[in-house]
Formats: sequence, structure tokens, C-alpha cells
Amino acid sequence: MTRDLTIADIRLTPILVADPPLLNTQGVHQPYTPRLIIEVITADGVTGIGETYGDIKYLELARPFARRLTGRPVSDLNGLFSIVDEVAVDSTRVSEAVDVGGLRGVQTADKLRLSVVSGFEVACLDALGKSLGLPVHALLGGKVRDAVEYSAYLFYKWADHPEGVAHERDDWGAALDPAGIVEQARKFTDRYGFTSFKLKGGVFPPAEEIAAVRALARAFPGRPLRLDPNGAWSVPTALTVAEELADVLEYLEDPALGTPAMAEVAAGLKRPDGGLPLATNMCVTTFAEIQEAFTTGAVQVVLSDHHYWGGLRNTQQLAAVCRTFGVGVSMHSNTHLGISLAAMTHVAATLPDLHHACDTHYPWQSEDVLTERLTFTDGRLSVPDVPGLGVELDRDRLAFLHRRWADDDGGLRERDDAAAMRVVDPGWVTPAVPRW
Amino acid sequence: MTRDLTIADIRLTPILVADPPLLNTQGVHQPYTPRLIIEVITADGVTGIGETYGDIKYLELARPFARRLTGRPVSDLNGLFSIVDEVAVDSTRVSEAVDVGGLRGVQTADKLRLSVVSGFEVACLDALGKSLGLPVHALLGGKVRDAVEYSAYLFYKWADHPEGVAHERDDWGAALDPAGIVEQARKFTDRYGFTSFKLKGGVFPPAEEIAAVRALARAFPGRPLRLDPNGAWSVPTALTVAEELADVLEYLEDPALGTPAMAEVAAGLKRPDGGLPLATNMCVTTFAEIQEAFTTGAVQVVLSDHHYWGGLRNTQQLAAVCRTFGVGVSMHSNTHLGISLAAMTHVAATLPDLHHACDTHYPWQSEDVLTERLTFTDGRLSVPDVPGLGVELDRDRLAFLHRRWADDDGGLRERDDAAAMRVVDPGWVTPAVPRW
Repeated sequence: MTRDLTIADIRLTPILVADPPLLNTQGVHQPYTPRLIIEVITADGVTGIGETYGDIKYLELARPFARRLTGRPVSDLNGLFSIVDEVAVDSTRVSEAVDVGGLRGVQTADKLRLSVVSGFEVACLDALGKSLGLPVHALLGGKVRDAVEYSAYLFYKWADHPEGVAHERDDWGAALDPAGIVEQARKFTDRYGFTSFKLKGGVFPPAEEIAAVRALARAFPGRPLRLDPNGAWSVPTALTVAEELADVLEYLEDPALGTPAMAEVAAGLKRPDGGLPLATNMCVTTFAEIQEAFTTGAVQVVLSDHHYWGGLRNTQQLAAVCRTFGVGVSMHSNTHLGISLAAMTHVAATLPDLHHACDTHYPWQSEDVLTERLTFTDGRLSVPDVPGLGVELDRDRLAFLHRRWADDDGGLRERDDAAAMRVVDPGWVTPAVPRW
Repeated sequence: MTRDLTIADIRLTPILVADPPLLNTQGVHQPYTPRLIIEVITADGVTGIGETYGDIKYLELARPFARRLTGRPVSDLNGLFSIVDEVAVDSTRVSEAVDVGGLRGVQTADKLRLSVVSGFEVACLDALGKSLGLPVHALLGGKVRDAVEYSAYLFYKWADHPEGVAHERDDWGAALDPAGIVEQARKFTDRYGFTSFKLKGGVFPPAEEIAAVRALARAFPGRPLRLDPNGAWSVPTALTVAEELADVLEYLEDPALGTPAMAEVAAGLKRPDGGLPLATNMCVTTFAEIQEAFTTGAVQVVLSDHHYWGGLRNTQQLAAVCRTFGVGVSMHSNTHLGISLAAMTHVAATLPDLHHACDTHYPWQSEDVLTERLTFTDGRLSVPDVPGLGVELDRDRLAFLHRRWADDDGGLRERDDAAAMRVVDPGWVTPAVPRW
């Protein structure tokens, strides 16, 4: 019964994983994106795994953080936050920088620290669960559902990355107009059984994206639809789009940039008397951003992301704050692998008020570090009841993807959607906001 | 390593424990007060213990709730909330009734359920911790401090309960004026080392209580002081008292009844530019009461009580909500035993932003159900690192206190501070609020 839960070692493995040429308002996904795989090993030899962003600034924080955690109990999850605060962050890495492809507002040292903690917290929970014989959801108080519903995440995309650029091929084909989006959505339903759809917008003028959503509504009548232009629109444009699509959208996601603009849009929609809810994973990504957004009625659904919020337990706290203020909660996702998807599934299973299908970027990831990919059935993932996260690291794949990172000349070690676009359009600059 | 965490049995033992003749604005504590001791036994024979209110309405809910929990995993803490909602509450027990001696506003079925859950959650955490070899604080993410500071809880009191009433004697003597309160405070510092002081007010006209606080300030210069009239004052009275005592009070607790009145007082104190903070354990005792109080600036410190909020994990969520809105958090306490004090200590140890000493009523309880009483050193309790809560049930004491409950004619099975006062003053009715 006595178990040694001391952290004996932590292994950090940066990797590059294939990403399809998905378009967003900033540019296009690069052919490979960096992720950091974290292994926390206890004195008893139990290994827990986690993942987070792999850009250099995350690595530079993760390494000294890992050294400080060695020798501490893997159960000391609250301590992660004070320990990470002891690690200095190079201010030149965060000042003026934007985070995660520019889609999360201005980077700060706090946001960086929470994103690093998130991967370590998941790895600690996995190790703790394996050590105690409990699934991660049980460490979070127990699941309240046996399966978690996810949504199809539709992207405008090219068939291939630009000529001359090394990349893995994907089998999704191009999607650059309403018909292409509907075809992509059909593939999603055929392959995974998803029954709700989110379109990443902000790529084409609003009229084209309205047409795409209308086409989806005709092809999948009555299904929940969402549109997310990543803050690319002005308040009047957002209001126009909202008016055009109010009858078919479940919610409109980040139509305008920043809480004041979102509050203007919400006021224009005559919330809370009814009207289209606004969701965000851009203007509310830290606890510090909640008060203004909630008291001004700027958002009705927060799309949590445990990589932003500092892990699974903070995600539960976020959900509690949202519940207290009558704000809905669901989940955001961008490029990540199966470890994070498993983590999302465990925490989502514990949230009583999860009334929307979670986003998942996972179907776009053809590569993973797991021995077995997670599989969606009827758009759902079942919640594992085995100890830990219930996923296993494939060390050969990990080594392969790490070699790709090690062999890179540095050009892909930082996600940069605008740089990827410049391969095709040398004059491309990140569009000023509002773009339309 | 495989352990059977199934709940095999739950034992519920109502007891009556001695309570001194402590005065408050409603009346006086009865000589004995009911508590419910909860034992959750796993299939492996591990027993976890918890306690909550023992009044009949709590017992009536606890019994069917316990039956529904048998056969479920002791780790399923999130499930407690949905399961308790399945148990019907006799509406006559809650409609028009007031809770916990009238000090928590109008009773509701939800409040009743959360109070019952709180005792079961603690018992489950104790059993889970013992099963896994982890202290309760580790199940809550780990302690961020090794000791929790408590405050001396001063009461106006009689030397004895009224003549002709069966009771246990206490050795605190009477305290009915400033000198008596200072003498009581000295006993608290001599016995337990407390360095902050809370006076339960609302008993005498405000001028007398101002004089008592002033006497404390002279006797213990620079020490944090608090005054809590349980909502007995009007807004103008509250503002007058606040003005008189602003230089010596750490905070003023529930000067007026209800969030609108508290908001008026807070506005009069010109918060948030500075001024005396207002604390509450009356107008914010459920998540549903938070939004109004926080958006109107009615309170600056929430005094949590895990018996109110539904357990230790909900207490952590409350703390997260408070932190998000820049509101402080500390802890309330009324008549309870060492099991709950141990539970409070574990959860308090995990809260990063606990900037005030917690209330504790424990020194007033001469009786307990533990083999060993918890002991304060320098006003602090150390946070146990043994599995579970770190306290052990004394079955002989439990049986003795249960016999007292079983032998009672029913007059003491419901806490009623006004009834106790009527023994001395037959014409006593619960004073209308505001009283002054």
C-alpha cells in the first residue's frame, strides 16, 4: 500500500507533427507544428504523460520548471503554480509577442506559465492515477457522463501545402467554397459521426462564409452550427452576420476582437432577452479576464482550453465561475495530440454543465505519439476507466517525431501562420483587425 | 494495488453535544446541540468519517441519501450532488423556516441538501485518503501551507445555562461587558495562542459592543479584530459603528441583513477606494447568491463554511470564484466538532489566497467524538500528513453522546436559540431586524 509518489525524473521531448494547410484569418498552418511531450516518472517507476505547446519559449520555461519539480510529490498539484512562478521568463519572449499563432491576444509571462503548467499537471495526474489505480476523472471527483461529445471542426483549406515545402499529405482535399465545406462536413460525419459543426471563419469576406454556413444548414438541417472568425470583424459586420445566421447558429464565436467589442456585439444582439449567444476562446483565456467580460455581458459561453487555463483542475474552477455567473462552458481545441484529447475528455466528463459539444482539432492530426489513436463513435469519445489517462506512449513514434524537430533548421520550431502564408504570398502580412 | 473502493455501508449517528450559554442576536445557545456523525465504510473495511448538522430535517434527508450511495465508488464525489437531488425534501421542513439558528437566511431545499452532502463528502474523502494512503489535502491538490491560522471567537455569555436546565458546566465564566470580553480574550490567548479576535455582537446596543471592541484594541494593540452582529443593525447604525471602529477592525462582518443592505453599507464606506472591508457568512452562502453580491460590491470577504457550500471541493471552487472577482475568502465556524475542524484545516491548507485567520468555534466545544482533541499551537493547527483527515473516532464517546440524543424528549433535537432564551425570558421572541 505504501507507494513512493516522489517525482524521480522528468523527460521533455520536443517534436514536430504534421499539420494540414488549414486557413485562418492570420494565415495558414505550417506543414509541421511543435509540441512538447512531458513524461513525469515517480520513484516507483510509474510514468505519467502530458503535452503542451512546443515553441521555444515554452521549452525554455519547461526545462528549469522540470528541474524544480524533481524530488517533490507528484500529488502536489497546487504547488505547481507557485513553483512555476519562481522560474524567470525572458521578457523579450513575451513583450509585444502574440500567442498561439496570434489567436489568443497578447502573450504574457502568466499565460506562458499556465500553458507550461497544464502539460505538467496532466502528466502528474496520469502518473498519480496509475500509481493509485484510479482514472484521471476519478482524481477530479468522478465522471458525471460516460462519453463526451465533440463537434466537427471545419476549415477552409488547400489540398496541399505549397510546392517545394516538405509536408505529409492529407486525404481531405481542398475546401475553399460552400460546396467544399459541405463535402468536408460529410467526411466528418462519415468518419466520426459528428452531429454539430464549427466553421473556422475570418478567411473570406463575410458573405462567402455566411453562404458556407447556409449551405451547411441546408445539408444538415437542425444540426448545431458555429462560426468563428477569430475576431476578424468589426462590430457592425458582426451584427450583420449574426442577424443573417441567428436562425441556424448555436453560437457565434469571437466575432470581434476584445471584450469591449464583444460587449458591443452582445448589446446589439439584445442579450439577455434572447438572441444569439456569443462564445469566446480569445477575450477570456485567463481568470483575470473574466470579471470585465462577465459583468459587461460580453460572452455567454466560454470555450475553455486546459492549455490556456493551467490544467484540468483550473478548467473545473473556470467551469464553477461560469456556472456561478450563468455563463455556459464548452471546450476549445487547436493543434494537439491524443494525450491532450484524453485529458480534455477526462475533465469534460466531470463538468456538470457542459451543454455544448466540445471542439476537437484531433481529426486533422494524422500523426500522434500514442500506440493507439483515440476513436470517435457517433461523435463521442468514451471516458476511460482504466488508471491514469488511459493512453500509452509509442516511443518509436516519439523518437521519430523528435528527430524531425532536432533536424529542423529552426524555421518550424515556432508556430507562425503568417510565415507559412508568405511562402505562397510573399507580401502577406497579418491582416489588421477588424479585417471586415 | 487493487482496492475495492465501493461503499459497502454507511452508519449515521445523531448525537447531542454540550454547548455553553453563548449569546447572539437571536437568543442563546441551548445546553446541547444536535450533530450527525457519518461513517462511510468501503468494501475493504476502511471507514471514513464526517459530520454535519443533526437537526431532524438533516437526518430525514441523510438516511435515504445514504441508502442511495451504498454500492457506489467512494471516489465519486461529483456524483453526490446529482444523487442528493433525487432525494425528496419535505417542503414543510424548509418553507418559511430559517436555517442554523436563523443565522443563514431562509432555509431552502438546496441549502439543506448541500449541508447534508458536506458531511458525506468529508467522510468519502477520509475513506478515500485512508484507502489510497494520502492525506485529504493531497486529494484536494496538496497543501500550500503547513499550518492554518485560526482566530479567537469571543462571545457574550452567561456563566451557566438557566437554573433547572440540564447542562455541562464550562470553565469560561460570564462575559457580559467589555472587561468580561477582554478577560475571555486573555483566556483564549493563554490557552491557544490566538492573535486575532472576533466578537459575536448583535447582543447589546451598539455602543456597548463598540466599547468592548475598543477595550480589546487597548488590551491587544495592533491585533486584527472583527465584530459580527449577525445582521442586527440598520444601514445608518452599521455606518456609525464602522466609522467608530474603522481604525481597529480587520473587517466588519454582516453588519446589516441581506445583500442590498450590505451593498448600501459598503457604498457608504466608499469602497473600493479604501475603507473597512465587509465580510459575510449570511448574505453569500450559496453560489446562487454570489453574482448579486459581487457585482454590487456588497462584500469584500466571503467567510466560507463547507457545511453551507457542499463540502471541501466546493469550498475550493468558491475560493476560485472569489479570487477571480478580487474578493477575499476566509472561514466561518459555528458549533461543530473535531471532524469538521480537521476538514476545515485540510481545505484551508490548499487555498492560495487565505489572507485572514479562520473562525473556529471549537474551543467552546468541551465534548468531542475523537480519541484525541485537536490542539492549537500559537493559534494554529498543523496540517496532518497521515492518510485521510488524521483524526480517529472514539466509539465509546460516540455511543454516550448518541444515548443522550436518543434519551432526549425531542426538545433539543432542533437547534433553537430563541427557545433557549425563553427559559429565562418567557416573553422572548426573535428580535425584528434591524434591531438597532
